[in-house]
Amino acid sequence: MTLEEIYGPVKDDLKLVEAMLGQIAGSDIPLLSDMLEFALLNVGKRLRPAVTLLSGKFYNYDLNLLVPMAAAAEVLHIGTLVHDDMIDSSAMRHGKQAVYRKYGVNNAILLGDYLFSRAGSLAAMTDNLRVIKRFSETLMTISGGELREGRVGFDPCSARDNYYQWIRDKTACLFVMAAECGSVLSGCPEGQVAALKDYALNFGLAFQIIDDILDFVGDQSILGKPIGSDLSEGAITLPSIIYSELNPSDSIISEIIVQRRKELVPQAVGKVRSSGVIDDCRKIAGQFYLKACNSLEKLPDCQARRSLAALAEFVIDREW
Amino acid sequence: MTLEEIYGPVKDDLKLVEAMLGQIAGSDIPLLSDMLEFALLNVGKRLRPAVTLLSGKFYNYDLNLLVPMAAAAEVLHIGTLVHDDMIDSSAMRHGKQAVYRKYGVNNAILLGDYLFSRAGSLAAMTDNLRVIKRFSETLMTISGGELREGRVGFDPCSARDNYYQWIRDKTACLFVMAAECGSVLSGCPEGQVAALKDYALNFGLAFQIIDDILDFVGDQSILGKPIGSDLSEGAITLPSIIYSELNPSDSIISEIIVQRRKELVPQAVGKVRSSGVIDDCRKIAGQFYLKACNSLEKLPDCQARRSLAALAEFVIDREW
Repeated sequence: MTLEEIYGPVKDDLKLVEAMLGQIAGSDIPLLSDMLEFALLNVGKRLRPAVTLLSGKFYNYDLNLLVPMAAAAEVLHIGTLVHDDMIDSSAMRHGKQAVYRKYGVNNAILLGDYLFSRAGSLAAMTDNLRVIKRFSETLMTISGGELREGRVGFDPCSARDNYYQWIRDKTACLFVMAAECGSVLSGCPEGQVAALKDYALNFGLAFQIIDDILDFVGDQSILGKPIGSDLSEGAITLPSIIYSELNPSDSIISEIIVQRRKELVPQAVGKVRSSGVIDDCRKIAGQFYLKACNSLEKLPDCQARRSLAALAEFVIDREW
Repeated sequence: MTLEEIYGPVKDDLKLVEAMLGQIAGSDIPLLSDMLEFALLNVGKRLRPAVTLLSGKFYNYDLNLLVPMAAAAEVLHIGTLVHDDMIDSSAMRHGKQAVYRKYGVNNAILLGDYLFSRAGSLAAMTDNLRVIKRFSETLMTISGGELREGRVGFDPCSARDNYYQWIRDKTACLFVMAAECGSVLSGCPEGQVAALKDYALNFGLAFQIIDDILDFVGDQSILGKPIGSDLSEGAITLPSIIYSELNPSDSIISEIIVQRRKELVPQAVGKVRSSGVIDDCRKIAGQFYLKACNSLEKLPDCQARRSLAALAEFVIDREW
């Protein structure tokens, strides 16, 4: 199934989210308007708005609440990317220059701050205190999580646990927020809210593992950023971790991460690719995918549920 | 009157705010905890919490709502300082190293983001939608305002208007939020909420003008940062603007700002100090002070009102 087919049940409503993002990009401050347009429009797959809307489809589907919430999830996500790209020194994002490279570091800091507050305003449009509180907590989890020590050094013993904690905090928690807020805003019973959160957690973990795999085996021109970016930026992801676990006498990953020997990145990428580690990672992502699908069983069978399952499958099979 | 005397009616409750800030500084992430303690504790005069609490003193003074809101105002303020110091390349704050100098740029970006979300969580503890919405809008105003073009170049014709807009967005709006939220949370009638907001706007403008004066004539050891910092960082404030208006043939300010000739800063500081411009600035700050006091006339006479008036006087007369 294509993404367009998967988005079927909420296709028209995603256009409303897009229109809202377009409105947000308008500001009386010319530089801000310019930056907002560059950062918000024509980027990404809008996965978080889709998860928000699809999670709201099971009960009272109220677009007055769900469209601002879906936009809030996307604006928050993009705000974190604007700051993350700067922190990770990533040059490219979605085949475009990273915001800080185009507009400078200072403007990128302020744009991220603006996007966080704008996202908060959008979440507040729901007038739902639970949703608003969940929103603030999510940004706390994302920014606090990045400050965990696990990211700084490289200890093979705790690397895998640190990695799961890290991707839960930086990626999965935003999908969890999207699913929780979408379902809560539609009056979903608590048991099913929990099931959708569980789906989103496992969906998010699978999504990030695939992202981290693609950084080793993806097609640079489709990804819109160079292969091996994570290692270059000092990020230890699942393929590097499993490679190091299986080859304890090979210190190449630790040399790159700890001694910042970036020139070894192409060699490390080659070693990981030819080692079978990528298959191991795909299996792990597949387990999270299955957990995500199992969680959906607790929800009424309907087109939205089938779309959520198909979306998880799409995420597992994607090449970008 | 000393600050301690002025804070009299809310003295004990400011200790509760301080205790809440202490709690916030605790985190299971050691680096985050360290940074929070450094950034949040033993810094500043806690003016924004004081304005929040004093504005809540006129009607139903509910500490369950006002203490988290006062903490939210301070945490938001400190979050903006963490990012601003980095943007302005300010080395010192309150006699301590700026956060980004002590912990690095990347950690400072994440700490600021964390503080914004933490402040949002604190504001959400009030369960008051108006307060929560005002909170998000305030951060939008602060970060968006910094992106206005006025800050980039130096056009003497529009400089004064740009300056007032800039200090309204970056400084006064947070005091306005504090006053509005404090009064709304105590069930204050709308006419008096408006009066308190008007007080806070003029208080904030006076406060910032005095801040900008002190950057020319203050005592370095009391201020905790070098004299002439604003010009060095490329910020054109009221003393520079009035000096340029009165001396159109002297291009020293524009040379510093546009051509980044930092070596001229001591000479410019000397010229501004000996020109009488500082007296003009003090008069303008005095006018905002009077407006602030006049706004208070619309409120019932009580100790809190006298404290707010005394606080404005303190701000005008301060040397730090």
